[in-house]
Amino acid sequence: MMKRRGVRLVVVGSLALDSVETPFEKKKELLGGSVSYACAAASFFAKTGMVAIAGQDFPAAHLDLYRKFGIDRTGLSLVKGRTFRWSGVYEANMIDRRTISTELNVFASFSPDLPDSYRGAPFVLLGNISPALQLHVLKQVHRPRFVMADTMDLWINTARKPLMEVISRVNMLMLNDVEARQLTGEYGILKCAAQILDWGPEYVVVKKGEHGAMLFSKRGLFIIPAYPVEEVCDPTGAGDSFAGGFMGALAGSSVVSERSVRAALLCGSVVASFTVEGFSLNRLAKISKSDISKRMAGLKKMTSAA
Amino acid sequence: MMKRRGVRLVVVGSLALDSVETPFEKKKELLGGSVSYACAAASFFAKTGMVAIAGQDFPAAHLDLYRKFGIDRTGLSLVKGRTFRWSGVYEANMIDRRTISTELNVFASFSPDLPDSYRGAPFVLLGNISPALQLHVLKQVHRPRFVMADTMDLWINTARKPLMEVISRVNMLMLNDVEARQLTGEYGILKCAAQILDWGPEYVVVKKGEHGAMLFSKRGLFIIPAYPVEEVCDPTGAGDSFAGGFMGALAGSSVVSERSVRAALLCGSVVASFTVEGFSLNRLAKISKSDISKRMAGLKKMTSAA
Repeated sequence: MMKRRGVRLVVVGSLALDSVETPFEKKKELLGGSVSYACAAASFFAKTGMVAIAGQDFPAAHLDLYRKFGIDRTGLSLVKGRTFRWSGVYEANMIDRRTISTELNVFASFSPDLPDSYRGAPFVLLGNISPALQLHVLKQVHRPRFVMADTMDLWINTARKPLMEVISRVNMLMLNDVEARQLTGEYGILKCAAQILDWGPEYVVVKKGEHGAMLFSKRGLFIIPAYPVEEVCDPTGAGDSFAGGFMGALAGSSVVSERSVRAALLCGSVVASFTVEGFSLNRLAKISKSDISKRMAGLKKMTSAA
Repeated sequence: MMKRRGVRLVVVGSLALDSVETPFEKKKELLGGSVSYACAAASFFAKTGMVAIAGQDFPAAHLDLYRKFGIDRTGLSLVKGRTFRWSGVYEANMIDRRTISTELNVFASFSPDLPDSYRGAPFVLLGNISPALQLHVLKQVHRPRFVMADTMDLWINTARKPLMEVISRVNMLMLNDVEARQLTGEYGILKCAAQILDWGPEYVVVKKGEHGAMLFSKRGLFIIPAYPVEEVCDPTGAGDSFAGGFMGALAGSSVVSERSVRAALLCGSVVASFTVEGFSLNRLAKISKSDISKRMAGLKKMTSAA
């Protein structure tokens, strides 16, 4: 575990016990939630601290796994009650999924309060929680260098006003193609992105699942390929790993520039490719930085025409 | 029109009058068919000859358009009867389409006979026609340097035996992701491609529509991005333009290598991006090689992290 005062990247998000059914397997109460995936992904590149809430039933083995990843847990509140639970079933294409149940439990009372050691963090990932909570986190950090927000259809439909405030205050918004259309009312992705850039963020990343993602900025467009994997075991957490891997790599690089943002997004893509090869954090727990570097080199060859 | 004995690339395929309905517009009896799109796309890069059949009702204006593209029409048979007609409707996503009607007409008696001036062509594109006819064309060419075959679900389901013979005899097979799964019985694209490579071709290209395509060979994998367009007017012919642009660019390059194949595939991707910006060949008819070069340079920037 790295020794350092404070953390370089703060990640706030959901922490859940997931029950997942794919066409091939069924698993119960796996460690999940956006904060778990994002922190684990980021931990390969920078000292990362989590802001999350769990119940007293949260297994000690999961805390131990966070520790092994080197994730700072000062911002993790363990409170009376049950941990958030989610269960879902994936369709045969391993992309579309149905939510079977959502039990918010202690997550319903989540009010993310940052430890002092987190407030000076230069990088902040506002994972997919309500925009009001994202704003609450933003108020507690001292002039971070780069803030990225994730969002989802639920907030677009039910909390547009605070979401618009979040969008106007972050450096990057990340969302998927369907959400980009919902948010802007435009259909073409280029138009959606142009509209969002107009609202303030320097960068917009539109995710397209297995087909990769696209980065938009005033400096142009960058096509982010997905690293192709032989077999997808469980797609849960792919987007959060992409976001976390990206923010970790950016936090670990010396500058924030179009170039470093692009390079960091490729890191995110590669880390996500490992995530989907196992359930929960199982695959991420088994890889090292050199495995990531190997796939990075591979991805470079797969996208180079020369 | 270029003056040269023989042609460098021979394209065989369907020639049709298409009636197309998109969510925004409805057009009748447009010039279409795989051979029209592929030849027009290829004509920017190499002297291309078409092998196709049309009826006496085929409008002279279309022949004139072929001439303007510099397409050699020696292999085009104009016979008694009506030209092949196809009509279809695109869904709101501009990807899925329903075929409303297919009138084979003279296409039902198509027996592609190559003019002498085509038989020595070093490059051959076997467009999407029955595998038996593709084999019939293969018999007539003298040791071409590079043959690419396109196919579709219809032949996978109804003519597997001759299709397998085609596959074993070509340098490259091009098909979409759904077809690759149908053909191999595998689900993961990497497994599908490995199986097809085992059957003989040096290269397999799996198309994924707006998400680009992937090239597989014994030398590895190449991710081919789609050039992002502001607004898709009509996706008809995108795949044929991709195939034609690729084969034209390859035929126009001095060597056939992994590198030149990759570069040529990017040309195909760019040409296809123009095709979808208009109905029929309307957009392709208005661009020049320098428009293609500009998008090639743009695509390079969009895929470069450095």
